[in-house]
Amino acid sequence: MAEGLVVLGLDPGTRVTGYGIVRELSGKAELVDTGTIRTPVREDMATRMGVLFNRLQELIRLHAPAEAAIENVFVSKNPSSALKLGQARGACMAACAVHNIPMGEYEPSKVKKNLVGLGSAPKSQVAYMVAHCLGVKKPDWPEDASDALAIAICHLNERRMRRLTGV
Amino acid sequence: MAEGLVVLGLDPGTRVTGYGIVRELSGKAELVDTGTIRTPVREDMATRMGVLFNRLQELIRLHAPAEAAIENVFVSKNPSSALKLGQARGACMAACAVHNIPMGEYEPSKVKKNLVGLGSAPKSQVAYMVAHCLGVKKPDWPEDASDALAIAICHLNERRMRRLTGV
Repeated sequence: MAEGLVVLGLDPGTRVTGYGIVRELSGKAELVDTGTIRTPVREDMATRMGVLFNRLQELIRLHAPAEAAIENVFVSKNPSSALKLGQARGACMAACAVHNIPMGEYEPSKVKKNLVGLGSAPKSQVAYMVAHCLGVKKPDWPEDASDALAIAICHLNERRMRRLTGV
Repeated sequence: MAEGLVVLGLDPGTRVTGYGIVRELSGKAELVDTGTIRTPVREDMATRMGVLFNRLQELIRLHAPAEAAIENVFVSKNPSSALKLGQARGACMAACAVHNIPMGEYEPSKVKKNLVGLGSAPKSQVAYMVAHCLGVKKPDWPEDASDALAIAICHLNERRMRRLTGV
């Protein structure tokens, strides 16, 4: 069993959910696994949420993350998209809770500020910092995966900061 | 093992989720179990969704419903409530999908029309019909449980209708 703290970052969506699994070892973050979970768009929502849940279960069993982190959205003006996004979040939360994995929630601006130092940083800059933090020169992962990795890294940083400041 | 088709009706919410389990035997609906699942309000949302998911798993293992039904909400003006409701729906969907239980979705007006004959029927009338359909003279269940039973009964009726009309 590899040492270090393993964190699962999630960027949920009903169509595509990005995931990023990062291990912290001696204060350095390293990439364990990242990618996206796509749900079958022609199936009904319940089936799709089942696919998302089951795929997450597999990832959790495989990598045994000790903690998880998710983006805490302050939603758009569209209640219908909010409901959909909520469903994907609910499936993600259930998947982690079944394994008693505590989950941190971070607002998008917090994630950006944490990685780039600026809450309004453009996506490309966040993606650059994700690759830099993980020591990956040519990242080949999709945007949703990169966002999930950013959340995982933010969680590790916040966690370290809390430990140092004792808050 | 008791015969008949067992259906789980769900009225999801992040605080309180109503459930109603109904068995259809020889064209008659009978009550199997009903009640509410409350999530610990002081915990974070991920923990609460885990409680909801786990409690549903217990109910599913106990009663082995063959099908499930959920209210298909067309959400309010408030994206924040929509997100919350979506989360509870996602946890419910995941719980059923894990057991490969197909889930029907019905709009509230459909449920009312199905039970009372009027899409704008008041809640009290729906509750009355729920008790009547199940042959219960003095129902002692809470409103959320009654709503979940209404969805289960609606599903059974719609199912029977589809079988008869071959649609």
